[in-house]
Amino acid sequence: AVLGARKMEDYGRFLALLGSALLVGFVSVVFSLVWVFHYREGLSWDGSPREFNWHPVLIITGFIFIQGIAIIVYRLPWTWKCSKLLMKFIHAGLNTIAMILAIVSMVAVFEFHNARNIPNMYSLHSWIGLTAVIFYSLQLVLGFAVFLLPFAPVALRAALMPIHVYSGLTIFATVIATALMGITEKLIFSLKNPAYSASPPEATFVNCLGLLLVIFGALILWMASRSHWKRPPAENAKVLRPIGGTPEGTEAESTMADGSNADKSDLRINSEAARKQNLKLDEAGQRSTM
Amino acid sequence: AVLGARKMEDYGRFLALLGSALLVGFVSVVFSLVWVFHYREGLSWDGSPREFNWHPVLIITGFIFIQGIAIIVYRLPWTWKCSKLLMKFIHAGLNTIAMILAIVSMVAVFEFHNARNIPNMYSLHSWIGLTAVIFYSLQLVLGFAVFLLPFAPVALRAALMPIHVYSGLTIFATVIATALMGITEKLIFSLKNPAYSASPPEATFVNCLGLLLVIFGALILWMASRSHWKRPPAENAKVLRPIGGTPEGTEAESTMADGSNADKSDLRINSEAARKQNLKLDEAGQRSTM
Repeated sequence: AVLGARKMEDYGRFLALLGSALLVGFVSVVFSLVWVFHYREGLSWDGSPREFNWHPVLIITGFIFIQGIAIIVYRLPWTWKCSKLLMKFIHAGLNTIAMILAIVSMVAVFEFHNARNIPNMYSLHSWIGLTAVIFYSLQLVLGFAVFLLPFAPVALRAALMPIHVYSGLTIFATVIATALMGITEKLIFSLKNPAYSASPPEATFVNCLGLLLVIFGALILWMASRSHWKRPPAENAKVLRPIGGTPEGTEAESTMADGSNADKSDLRINSEAARKQNLKLDEAGQRSTM
Repeated sequence: AVLGARKMEDYGRFLALLGSALLVGFVSVVFSLVWVFHYREGLSWDGSPREFNWHPVLIITGFIFIQGIAIIVYRLPWTWKCSKLLMKFIHAGLNTIAMILAIVSMVAVFEFHNARNIPNMYSLHSWIGLTAVIFYSLQLVLGFAVFLLPFAPVALRAALMPIHVYSGLTIFATVIATALMGITEKLIFSLKNPAYSASPPEATFVNCLGLLLVIFGALILWMASRSHWKRPPAENAKVLRPIGGTPEGTEAESTMADGSNADKSDLRINSEAARKQNLKLDEAGQRSTM
């Protein structure tokens, strides 16, 4: 009963974080729209600054918000009854949408620059941003080939999964850092009278957008890096389970619900629960191979 | 023998990554010095741009390079024979040096701004940068109080350690993102004829510095997030170890050197090694409580 209550409390904490991330991400998208429609020239596709304005809107909507959701989609507890294959398609699909929006948003900037004879690819923002899009695309192609297509051997999947996770989170953080550079550039270039340094309302508003992006990134990285919020391993994971391991959802599950030993030590560890946790940790590192 | 060779190979990989991180970090510091001495006005403390120049030099040296080393200092295998307390002092000491250098570097900017009547704290760079310094200082004070002073109960240390690790890595990534914004600002403001967009040598050189900072951050985050490179738990960790666990360095160590079962499965898992790995994973999450 004690452990059951703790499990519900943990579920509530997950929902609160998910709600916060969705809210912060959604408000960021709204802020990007208010920025371009209220403070800037709006949106169109004609080589004018209105075409440039697609850049922040599509990056924040696709490359940040949708990418963030794609990262944590395996964590949603109500998807754990869906097949792993379906979830992989959703993960890959969301990332594909994010990639397309990122590429369209780059085309908007190149066309705007070309229409105005502004050089392309001179800034640190452009260098790191293009690098991030290239790595993101490689990650998507490699992830599709290794984890979605049925050809890669289990050992290869197991070896690549930690790299896939690390690359994904590092690219996500880099994309947010690049967006912060882009906001800095755009505010310096477009605020002239009054200047950025005079803190007109647009400057303060867009600075707040930058803060929201950092908070969104921090929430996604926290949810993605808690191993106890991972999708439980599939039944067939037992072929890889060390001898003596038990399938999830049976013995391990019933141990979770049995709190009789819960208060026997300061850290609430008992040998049985600890053994189960060990198995879970072990599987967490390997179930990606399914 | 096979597992022993694998262990050596893994050690070699760690050394290669550490060498790369040290090299990239050192070259970043050199680049910051070349930037201010070759392309800019040099260093002094007189309210001139030479005082501002302390800002990038001290941030890159202290808040990025030294902070990065502080993050991975527990991973250095030759420190594992040192006491955990000594390593905590080194970790806290390096972070204290980084914090002092970050604060001095901010004072340099404020004095430069004030001498020139440039407003303070208007940019996204300044908002996020000041927030990062405040969180970094809180992290240091809280870490000192909980993990170094002998008063905090083991359960509190265990509960706070994942937050300490997450906060540390998130602050580190945020500091690098802030540095990229700062580079963007400084290049736009200081390159006028030719402008940043004309890609003069200074622009290309400092863009490369920005790339080096991203690579340094990515290397540190990889080393910090590999659980098998963690400092092994101390002998007295066994008070928290699940019943049946064995002290590191004795039975587990000899299993590592015994490769007789190594090729029995595709994933090179055997029940004994897997059980040991489980224990290690479990301890990895808890030994911070020592």
